[in-house]
Amino acid sequence: MNMMGIVLAAGQGKRMKSKLYKVLHKVCGKPMVGHVVTALENINTARTVVVVGHGADAVKSYLGDRVEYALQEQQLGTGHAVLQAKDLLESEEGLTIVICGDTPLVSEETLEGMVRLHQDKGAAATILTAEMDKPHGYGRILRDARGFVSSIVEEKDCTDEQRLVKEINTGTYCFDNKKLFEALSLVKNDNAQNEYYLTDVIAILASQGSIIEGYVMKEAIEAIGVNDRLALAEAEQGMRARINRRHMINGVTLVDPANTYIEAEVQIGSDTVIYPGTVLKGDTVIGSDCVIGPQADITDSQLADGVTVKHSVLLEAKVGTGTSVGPYAYLRPGSDLGKNVKIGDFVEIKNAKLDDEVKVSHLSYIGDAVIGRNVNFGCGAITVNYDGFNKQLTEVEEDAFIGSNVNLIAPVKVGKGAYVVAGSTITHNVEPNDLAIARERQTNKPGYAEKLRSKFAAKKKQSVTE
Amino acid sequence: MNMMGIVLAAGQGKRMKSKLYKVLHKVCGKPMVGHVVTALENINTARTVVVVGHGADAVKSYLGDRVEYALQEQQLGTGHAVLQAKDLLESEEGLTIVICGDTPLVSEETLEGMVRLHQDKGAAATILTAEMDKPHGYGRILRDARGFVSSIVEEKDCTDEQRLVKEINTGTYCFDNKKLFEALSLVKNDNAQNEYYLTDVIAILASQGSIIEGYVMKEAIEAIGVNDRLALAEAEQGMRARINRRHMINGVTLVDPANTYIEAEVQIGSDTVIYPGTVLKGDTVIGSDCVIGPQADITDSQLADGVTVKHSVLLEAKVGTGTSVGPYAYLRPGSDLGKNVKIGDFVEIKNAKLDDEVKVSHLSYIGDAVIGRNVNFGCGAITVNYDGFNKQLTEVEEDAFIGSNVNLIAPVKVGKGAYVVAGSTITHNVEPNDLAIARERQTNKPGYAEKLRSKFAAKKKQSVTE
Amino acid sequence: MNMMGIVLAAGQGKRMKSKLYKVLHKVCGKPMVGHVVTALENINTARTVVVVGHGADAVKSYLGDRVEYALQEQQLGTGHAVLQAKDLLESEEGLTIVICGDTPLVSEETLEGMVRLHQDKGAAATILTAEMDKPHGYGRILRDARGFVSSIVEEKDCTDEQRLVKEINTGTYCFDNKKLFEALSLVKNDNAQNEYYLTDVIAILASQGSIIEGYVMKEAIEAIGVNDRLALAEAEQGMRARINRRHMINGVTLVDPANTYIEAEVQIGSDTVIYPGTVLKGDTVIGSDCVIGPQADITDSQLADGVTVKHSVLLEAKVGTGTSVGPYAYLRPGSDLGKNVKIGDFVEIKNAKLDDEVKVSHLSYIGDAVIGRNVNFGCGAITVNYDGFNKQLTEVEEDAFIGSNVNLIAPVKVGKGAYVVAGSTITHNVEPNDLAIARERQTNKPGYAEKLRSKFAAKKKQSVTE
Repeated sequence: MNMMGIVLAAGQGKRMKSKLYKVLHKVCGKPMVGHVVTALENINTARTVVVVGHGADAVKSYLGDRVEYALQEQQLGTGHAVLQAKDLLESEEGLTIVICGDTPLVSEETLEGMVRLHQDKGAAATILTAEMDKPHGYGRILRDARGFVSSIVEEKDCTDEQRLVKEINTGTYCFDNKKLFEALSLVKNDNAQNEYYLTDVIAILASQGSIIEGYVMKEAIEAIGVNDRLALAEAEQGMRARINRRHMINGVTLVDPANTYIEAEVQIGSDTVIYPGTVLKGDTVIGSDCVIGPQADITDSQLADGVTVKHSVLLEAKVGTGTSVGPYAYLRPGSDLGKNVKIGDFVEIKNAKLDDEVKVSHLSYIGDAVIGRNVNFGCGAITVNYDGFNKQLTEVEEDAFIGSNVNLIAPVKVGKGAYVVAGSTITHNVEPNDLAIARERQTNKPGYAEKLRSKFAAKKKQSVTE
Repeated sequence: MNMMGIVLAAGQGKRMKSKLYKVLHKVCGKPMVGHVVTALENINTARTVVVVGHGADAVKSYLGDRVEYALQEQQLGTGHAVLQAKDLLESEEGLTIVICGDTPLVSEETLEGMVRLHQDKGAAATILTAEMDKPHGYGRILRDARGFVSSIVEEKDCTDEQRLVKEINTGTYCFDNKKLFEALSLVKNDNAQNEYYLTDVIAILASQGSIIEGYVMKEAIEAIGVNDRLALAEAEQGMRARINRRHMINGVTLVDPANTYIEAEVQIGSDTVIYPGTVLKGDTVIGSDCVIGPQADITDSQLADGVTVKHSVLLEAKVGTGTSVGPYAYLRPGSDLGKNVKIGDFVEIKNAKLDDEVKVSHLSYIGDAVIGRNVNFGCGAITVNYDGFNKQLTEVEEDAFIGSNVNLIAPVKVGKGAYVVAGSTITHNVEPNDLAIARERQTNKPGYAEKLRSKFAAKKKQSVTE
Repeated sequence: MNMMGIVLAAGQGKRMKSKLYKVLHKVCGKPMVGHVVTALENINTARTVVVVGHGADAVKSYLGDRVEYALQEQQLGTGHAVLQAKDLLESEEGLTIVICGDTPLVSEETLEGMVRLHQDKGAAATILTAEMDKPHGYGRILRDARGFVSSIVEEKDCTDEQRLVKEINTGTYCFDNKKLFEALSLVKNDNAQNEYYLTDVIAILASQGSIIEGYVMKEAIEAIGVNDRLALAEAEQGMRARINRRHMINGVTLVDPANTYIEAEVQIGSDTVIYPGTVLKGDTVIGSDCVIGPQADITDSQLADGVTVKHSVLLEAKVGTGTSVGPYAYLRPGSDLGKNVKIGDFVEIKNAKLDDEVKVSHLSYIGDAVIGRNVNFGCGAITVNYDGFNKQLTEVEEDAFIGSNVNLIAPVKVGKGAYVVAGSTITHNVEPNDLAIARERQTNKPGYAEKLRSKFAAKKKQSVTE
């Protein structure tokens, strides 16, 4: 079966009160129109046409050549919008799904169900419908004795009886492509708004005796169309619940799914436990048996099995099996940690490869570095990788011990098993097994603390007096 | 129209189990009685009397001279409480709103609606009512054939039929002021509790043939009266939802409004995105196009447009356009950041002015300082502003480069374009374009690391043996 | 009354998709079977038998000798499971509660209510039931004219009328012990699954004319049985709400109970305020008038009254009255803070006793140390407690002042009132009132910054060219 998609994405979205074009607002990290196009791709539409208008360039720039485009210069109604795809699609045999770019929750399972019903019943058009406890404001679906759709009645045109109908039009449709464009050419704009309505196509097809079906979606939340930020938040919540449900069924423990934020593409292994306040984004992959959060914030990172990440931010980082990160660590792009590494509190890693068993326990920064197996960085030890112009490399070979508050001024290399004593600023290479020291000897001045205090106190008194 | 307000705030609130007087418990950062008084102020009451009893001093200390006070020494019922305002208000012409100090969600729109109905219908009293699916426990509103209120029946006095009534008394009223105090003088305490009930005023006015209206609030959540911490949490949730809704309608994206905590006075520009776990308090103003959170905690701060704040705490800070803060930064009072400043991870700023383009990327503390344009602080560089007695000033002029782990011992000044090398402790001024260094040269001791290890290992062995 | 308990804990729990045995999955920090056994202990069962099968060793290892065990080698139905306890319990007089190990929310109040009804009515068996708006999937409770239970009908065997019954079987029972085992010996497995059903015992007892009661639990959420991670998250939410409700009734303010995570054993004093995103675990005790969170993460720690903890992690720490911690501090095991101590941002404390009034304001690490009253640690000051082999002690006596970025190399002692100047590495003891210094003098090289910049810029240019 040849399937086409038409995505209506030309509206401005004034109630969003935004410089950003409506369908580009994100739901779980992906623009709404991206969700819609992905769903169409996943059910294997042969061609997808996105009808653009306001913000056309921004939408094209985001979607690129995944789709074809039709331009609707003036917004003259949904029927008019679909009509813009006529030149591209009218000669196609098959069926065409028409869907709005601001309905990000319509799932591929739902689209497939609609298409299946459409084909099974030999329908000319199938409307995606939902059953709502509070249908107020939506067009109602009226069905005939056979159970087929006889018409869609807008709220304002409803009789009291029709108003009680709970099945509503979600604005997504499946059409016989030829019949769609034939009927569309008959649609007129002789109404109050002078617009061309796509629902008139349904009336025309029905009047021709064609079969019109209605496919009821299983979860009414999928019907949500986003016109303001309140609906955007609702859509986000619905999508989040769907994603989280999938992970839980796969064997991931979410301590509080209502407070866990996972984007659509993230993968997580079984028996991993995610604590609340955690945000997982982008192309992140997390292994099995990990403990993540609370309040972990991980983007575009790969974590192996058995990793612990608490109260930390990871961005484009790789973390090996059994490694522990945080609390309060920041792994920046290019962080590449081996197995059983320990990254403790107030530690930043950037563009650095740390081999297995390395320990960076507290208050350190390792940037632009290659660190060998089993190296220990003392508290406050850092790499000085930047001179104001150049980012330069620090190398520390396996088993070396870098004392507390040591500065390793790059480019510099510390050899295998070398020992750098605390408080040293290292400007030259240290050979394997050498000890390096660069600090002044201690002098104690007996009783001088008291004198200093008197001086400081006098100064304070003076400043208060002044 | 002359409007008065009487706020009943004399109850102890035993079920709060608190040393703090009930109406002073906070909802979204503001004491409950403060919300009530603000709502009255916003509808322009000419005079507001707060009836105080338990904790009178604490309430007076909080509200100050925004209102007048009447003291209810003994708690003898709601009618008795209102009676305490008689001396102050009985001679006034106009209408009087009576409201409890523990109903923080009653909105000014609701009060205005009640007053409008009261006036339109020429009522002697108008009851603020709510429709509840589960009215159990509340006084029911009975209406006559004309639709006016005929009486309020307490739960325990309800017939089976009356018990089905879903319109309930919320305990807020609008009265003709003269009629209120006239009727109040007729109220008796011949009931089981020996208390004077304000609802008896309604019965008296009704028996006199006066019109009694009932104004149904739009959102029943506004009816909540707080008697324990469960209700306090509910009120907080209701207020939070109202505040968040307002921001979303204004064009702010809240990724999860259920997990975003914004106090009433905070202002936020459009197209700003707020990630979950964020807390915005006090007189905070946030510009447009900002990215805030996750887990940002911002109080009494001003952020310009395009600011990014991740996992950071800001307190009385100013942040310029395009500046980025965090993750894990702490801006304390007096932080004043220019445009395009970068404050990175594990950085504290306090009482310091940083000009545009300054970079403080990691593990630094800048306190009591004036930092010129385009200065770079290396990792771990700090100002030493405190000698145990005095907080002293550090000045760094534009384009200077402060190396990693440098200590700038205040008072000290580093001139324009100067360069302080990593690991130096700077005690004297550095002139423009000078290079300053204060560190010992490095000595490498060949093979000595191994000896040191043996020594340490022996020590360890000995300590284990002991 | 002699009470026994039988806990059914032999199922594998395939839908958990877990290596961990089902009843060991945690709800609010405690394995599910632990919650069930605790509830039985709290109602004073004389003996409790846990029927184990899959993962028997893991369950035994967790529960230890709190209970007795019976092994169900093959899973042949609930009746068969109970039968495994026959040898241990059949000779006992009294009553026996049979409960599943995956129903962690059944409360002791509910069990007590069931037992009371059982005894009051002289029942042979009492079924713990729940009333569900959506009873689909559960066995329905049918009652006779006297109000006693006549039978349990499984969903699939229900007539249309029976399907409307909202009282359902939760799978927990109270039996006369003798009658239980007598009836159990009559249960057959002549059904589709060839299993022995415990519900057949009810049918047998009913057919013998014994009284069967049904005790309706007050909150249907207690009925939840956990078979997958979705239900696990629901159970967690239910337990969390119960725990949080208890604290709120006790006078603790939870700003957002839906976003506050408190394990069962945690104690909190009145007028303490907990901000969102906070996690309190294990044997944590928190005093009165504390301010905790947002995003505090506290495990096995003791906090006195008036403590403030913001955005910090505490693990096995003690914190004295009036002490303030954070934001972004990490107190590790053995942290023992006195009164009015200030632990600021980016500070780690480990195995260290800090006396009253100590200040460690920023970017410090204090490990393996004893710090006297009123000591001040400057920014970045640290203890160097580890040489790669030994953890050694640092002592600082009262009123000493440790300057910024000072390294105290353990073992070392700084005497009372001593003053260590900023940037010093201290390797030898400092006597009381002495001043210690260990840093190089500053040299300024006029105009050299410019030369250095040219050199660095040239290097950059070269590296770009290469």
